[in-house]
Amino acid sequence: MVASAHSPVMSPIRFSRRGNALIGQEMFRVLERARVLEAQGIEVLHLELGNPRLPPPEAAVTDAIGALQRLEVGYTYSAGHPSLRKAVAELYGGANGRALTEANVVISPANLIINQFLDLVCDPGDSVVFFTPAFPTYWAAARHIGLNVLQVPLDPIDGFDLTHDDVSRALELRPRAIIVNSANNPTGAVYGREVLDRLARECDRLGIWLLSDETYGELSYGKEFYSLVGLDLPHVIIMSSFSKIFSVPGYRIGFLVADPVVAAKFTLSVSTLISCLPIFTQIGCASGIRSISEYTANVRARCDRITKWCNASMGQCASIRFPHPAAGFYYFIDISATGIDDMRFAERLLEEEHTAVTPGSCFGAAYGGFVRIAICGKEEDVRLGVTRLTDFVGKLQAERGVV
Amino acid sequence: MVASAHSPVMSPIRFSRRGNALIGQEMFRVLERARVLEAQGIEVLHLELGNPRLPPPEAAVTDAIGALQRLEVGYTYSAGHPSLRKAVAELYGGANGRALTEANVVISPANLIINQFLDLVCDPGDSVVFFTPAFPTYWAAARHIGLNVLQVPLDPIDGFDLTHDDVSRALELRPRAIIVNSANNPTGAVYGREVLDRLARECDRLGIWLLSDETYGELSYGKEFYSLVGLDLPHVIIMSSFSKIFSVPGYRIGFLVADPVVAAKFTLSVSTLISCLPIFTQIGCASGIRSISEYTANVRARCDRITKWCNASMGQCASIRFPHPAAGFYYFIDISATGIDDMRFAERLLEEEHTAVTPGSCFGAAYGGFVRIAICGKEEDVRLGVTRLTDFVGKLQAERGVV
Repeated sequence: MVASAHSPVMSPIRFSRRGNALIGQEMFRVLERARVLEAQGIEVLHLELGNPRLPPPEAAVTDAIGALQRLEVGYTYSAGHPSLRKAVAELYGGANGRALTEANVVISPANLIINQFLDLVCDPGDSVVFFTPAFPTYWAAARHIGLNVLQVPLDPIDGFDLTHDDVSRALELRPRAIIVNSANNPTGAVYGREVLDRLARECDRLGIWLLSDETYGELSYGKEFYSLVGLDLPHVIIMSSFSKIFSVPGYRIGFLVADPVVAAKFTLSVSTLISCLPIFTQIGCASGIRSISEYTANVRARCDRITKWCNASMGQCASIRFPHPAAGFYYFIDISATGIDDMRFAERLLEEEHTAVTPGSCFGAAYGGFVRIAICGKEEDVRLGVTRLTDFVGKLQAERGVV
Repeated sequence: MVASAHSPVMSPIRFSRRGNALIGQEMFRVLERARVLEAQGIEVLHLELGNPRLPPPEAAVTDAIGALQRLEVGYTYSAGHPSLRKAVAELYGGANGRALTEANVVISPANLIINQFLDLVCDPGDSVVFFTPAFPTYWAAARHIGLNVLQVPLDPIDGFDLTHDDVSRALELRPRAIIVNSANNPTGAVYGREVLDRLARECDRLGIWLLSDETYGELSYGKEFYSLVGLDLPHVIIMSSFSKIFSVPGYRIGFLVADPVVAAKFTLSVSTLISCLPIFTQIGCASGIRSISEYTANVRARCDRITKWCNASMGQCASIRFPHPAAGFYYFIDISATGIDDMRFAERLLEEEHTAVTPGSCFGAAYGGFVRIAICGKEEDVRLGVTRLTDFVGKLQAERGVV
């Protein structure tokens, strides 16, 4: 753009520091690259996003439709629809021996809850601890806010389990906040009760805020899940998401359980940022809770069946390594023996085999030797995708002359 | 809590600076106070929230239901569903003579767009100009981010119109950003083309970011609305909301039109904060656009009819003053002659007359002599609420011995 004395000088576009620090979520970029291929008529297998394709609990859909038919399309409370807050309080209070009321529960999209948590408890420059590998939104939110991320890498030899040593290292760093994620995305690990209890009690004693992201807790099939919701500790916030519990990621409805004072702060944040959430999707989720046991039992059985097949199938491929997941939808696969990094691996797998996966470095810069696959799509697609992946690894080895 | 040598010392709860700066939206607190009365069996008239109770365009509901029945409950693009982005680009490009594509459009809740705008372009301590009175979310977002709000108060004698003098004063303050809101909430003023054009062009020339909040533009019945969407200026971002256009606030779907580089930055922000929005509500809004002219013509006719009645009814009450709105759902009413302030007025009106209104100071601390009423509820409720309000003003005057 050339400026003359007679044309107005154009000012360059300049964003804020927080604007410049946005990185978004790589999985959604992989999705968009996949869509480019699909627009060319190519069928792509989607193993990149935890986008469950199972039918949701019937009532979660029919009751949302019913509310829409009744034109329940107005505003509701910033803290969430009373029916859903009550249902969550009863469900999680009852199952974990803690007297919870609506005042402990706030409804918000799970992805937003992660951002809200760090926003409400950390100032720019504060330190936050992630046990790595860690979910991309944690990184994106911390970077947006300007936090100093301290990593406690979990040991792949232990299947990325959380140990007492890991907890000690995290606490010694004296961060402002810690995020712990059991059942884990991307590793599928489910952490033990004792180690989680110690982490939570020590955090509360030291005034370190702890977000316990239990999004995949209901979907533990290989090990009993332990929730921190049973502890009544003001610095400990529990979150989960109906996206995964009920296979309705498009509802964008998650929830948190916290001390009432902390819950009220989250409510103010919801009010400021998004006013409130839709009524009809909240009514749908409240109805889904009536059949949560049967529904999640089915999902767990399905995950168990598919992972058994995947464990066996990928287990025959000598060039990749992975812990057997005990929960959730994901495999975190060590591809370092293939000789190419995660970005190149994901790019070539998409272009050559039309199969989308998430690069491991989205879960921490140290994980460029990994990719994540999601097994929550259609079962035949998962099997075909995994077969393509192992075939592709074979092809890479052949290229390098490895037998 | 008493700490002993044997019990762990409890750490006090401490939030971040941004957490402490949250104020939320007062209208939602008024709503919650009203709900307390309703829980006691008292019927409350809701004139506090712009919560339209008109039936939405039929297709906006039936096509959302259809998408739910097809189980379109997965993730979609962070920038928004392609069908809706395309429909918005065609509608607003076509109506305003600007070649818009999907790359110019991002779908996000309108309330979040306000927060995202200030977050993306302002650093803490930066100045932002509001023409006052101004919508509460502007204040809440600016305070959350730590901005220095500079006010340019509009003149009630002009019906709170935006004048060239106001624009000059705003530009002379050399802020990082300005928010302009025509058609206006709470005053109902619709600003002139020339003054808006000058504001936009000067902002872009000076590198001042301008958010043009045009949420009520489609609902202008007393004066022709002028949209800045026709100007192709990188520093100017246009936003609106289907909450008001289609009477579906519970969908939580708004949109913005911007330069593609700026739109991409907003998309990253959506991806980081909320991943994406539901597919089915976006499909509903895209379908609603097919009948937008007929639908908004009906809403405008309705607003025109109700405001004519309100103008006449409230005009007979000598102790209150208000400009006749030319757009949208609101009256901004000067109650200073009643001798009590807005908070006390709203509180007593709710308790004594069971009618909820929004205190004027929510729109700027200087407006403690005003209240806002919304006329988008059921017509008979609006009439009854307005009658209760004028009766209440009469009662206040009688209490003070004013005849």
